[in-house]
Amino acid sequence: MITTKGYAAQQAGAELAEWNFERRELGPKDVQFDILFCGVCHSDLHQINNDWFEGLFPMVPGHEIVGKVVQIGAEVTKFKIGDLAGTGCMVDSCRDCENCKDGLEQYCKNGNVQTYNGVNPYTDGMPTYGGYSKTIVVNEDFVLHVSDKLDLAAIAPLLCAGITTYSPLRHWKVGKGHKVAILGLGGLGHMGVKFAVAFGADVTVLSTSPKKEADAKKLGAHHFVVTTDPEQFEAAKGTFDFILDTVSAEHDIASYLSLLRTNGTHICVGIPAVPSQIPPFALLDGRKSLAGSGIGGIKETQEMLDFCAEHNIVSDIELIDIKDIHEAYKRMEKGDVRYRFVIDMATL
Amino acid sequence: MITTKGYAAQQAGAELAEWNFERRELGPKDVQFDILFCGVCHSDLHQINNDWFEGLFPMVPGHEIVGKVVQIGAEVTKFKIGDLAGTGCMVDSCRDCENCKDGLEQYCKNGNVQTYNGVNPYTDGMPTYGGYSKTIVVNEDFVLHVSDKLDLAAIAPLLCAGITTYSPLRHWKVGKGHKVAILGLGGLGHMGVKFAVAFGADVTVLSTSPKKEADAKKLGAHHFVVTTDPEQFEAAKGTFDFILDTVSAEHDIASYLSLLRTNGTHICVGIPAVPSQIPPFALLDGRKSLAGSGIGGIKETQEMLDFCAEHNIVSDIELIDIKDIHEAYKRMEKGDVRYRFVIDMATL
Repeated sequence: MITTKGYAAQQAGAELAEWNFERRELGPKDVQFDILFCGVCHSDLHQINNDWFEGLFPMVPGHEIVGKVVQIGAEVTKFKIGDLAGTGCMVDSCRDCENCKDGLEQYCKNGNVQTYNGVNPYTDGMPTYGGYSKTIVVNEDFVLHVSDKLDLAAIAPLLCAGITTYSPLRHWKVGKGHKVAILGLGGLGHMGVKFAVAFGADVTVLSTSPKKEADAKKLGAHHFVVTTDPEQFEAAKGTFDFILDTVSAEHDIASYLSLLRTNGTHICVGIPAVPSQIPPFALLDGRKSLAGSGIGGIKETQEMLDFCAEHNIVSDIELIDIKDIHEAYKRMEKGDVRYRFVIDMATL
Repeated sequence: MITTKGYAAQQAGAELAEWNFERRELGPKDVQFDILFCGVCHSDLHQINNDWFEGLFPMVPGHEIVGKVVQIGAEVTKFKIGDLAGTGCMVDSCRDCENCKDGLEQYCKNGNVQTYNGVNPYTDGMPTYGGYSKTIVVNEDFVLHVSDKLDLAAIAPLLCAGITTYSPLRHWKVGKGHKVAILGLGGLGHMGVKFAVAFGADVTVLSTSPKKEADAKKLGAHHFVVTTDPEQFEAAKGTFDFILDTVSAEHDIASYLSLLRTNGTHICVGIPAVPSQIPPFALLDGRKSLAGSGIGGIKETQEMLDFCAEHNIVSDIELIDIKDIHEAYKRMEKGDVRYRFVIDMATL
């Protein structure tokens, strides 16, 4: 076994603290890479707090992981020692179901293996531990190549916030001629703006916070609507082909549906802890759709990373020391981060 | 003015009774047709009871109307006296907004005019009265041609139940290679089965009522799932590309979403009186969509009627006398109708 160190919550809701644990010895297809940076996702906090379901503890969060390969299994072909590497929200899947075969491992019918707070039945049946740690062992099929031309720390959030917004925009073929609203300008939202702009759409940021307008424009958004201003909200009604809803806090989705045009689609990628209430006429009137989308498949994640390298797209980040993680969580909960915290794992 | 007779509720929740009222004199583009048959829609009852919103009273329900043209305006070109004619849920719209111009009058941005329980701002500003009556005056653009080769009484429900199921199946391009579930086997559901089968899909009826299986198969359905049987429900999980949800009563949409395949779409055409609760992962897991669809545009309604004439499709009906309408409502509420009541207007 490979002994390593991480930052773990020993039980639900607990503060994180240093914890020594073990990674598995490399199998023939495994890659070990030392973690240089790990992004901080709102879902880390949801999972530490058991907001969605009963978690597995001790829990080492983190699924926006980049680093450098230090060891490879005998049959590894995609990576060599010294390569940059990344891993997102999944470290394995059954490889056998129709979704896996379609490159949609995120929807694996037998259950993919989450990077942390999961158990891997396809290898050793052991719990998984995430990226708030010094090193990680992952089957090469779930390790991504990352560019050496971009700021490595700023690449980390692409592995979750990036792919989570890239994938639905691609799936629904968002681009030229479309009016797209990005709801919420946080970690996911700011990536949604960058991608939607890069794909040629006319992009509006919807935010409760007027002070984010300058940032939204700087990120490339063409318009900004303060959703708490009734006049601006009214004027935006019936105008969007798509709303990419990145909000993880409880919010009234039904009211946003009124901003869609006929045949418009509201795509949820944020995951609130409570059910949404959809009144009977909210979708019927205008033949609207409410959809959900979760991260992306491995092939699409690599495509996204390559697209980012080509178009010089990274996340806007605040680099923090691991000891400041709880302060970062507090600020993240208030939406006070521009736009993603990334932990410098050298500080662990 | 044209004096006529109808069956009206004088106030919300009241029993219907004979009522004399007036139709407008024909304008140059108006068609008057004597009503021979009128279908009974669940929404008639919802509107009499103010389930959705405050209605206009006296209310003459009925929006599945067929009859024979008795008078035409000077500029009418589509109809001549003696023609069969039909009118569905709308009698007018603004004709000017992008949706009207796209043939989507049902989503008119300035508001279409409902056949009853509405007011027509585009003509005389007067309330509209529906098909539980002897004669009606409608702008020819909202009057449909109906075939003389089919049972006229059985055509009536096509004007609402028919187009409401035809339109979404066409919009989402449902056909060969698709597995489609029709949820609820009532007025809408039984038409959904007929159309989905005619379009070449593999069709399953989902019903709480095991005794509907024989009927479902007779209507053309290939499979039948009793949704209250946990084993059958479990076996159906993840199997449908589309669910056409025709249920107007309160029901747990979230549980049915689990029956969809990856990328599946649940289309609501029934209109419950309460909001649906959608848990956060119900759509995200499998990139599913929940959509709504309302009737169809005029051009599409004519296309549907022509398709029915060509493929010998009508509604399965129980013909009733107008005096039996309250008994019919009671049976309809219990789902005890195969599959649509139609009023023989000769009995008024």
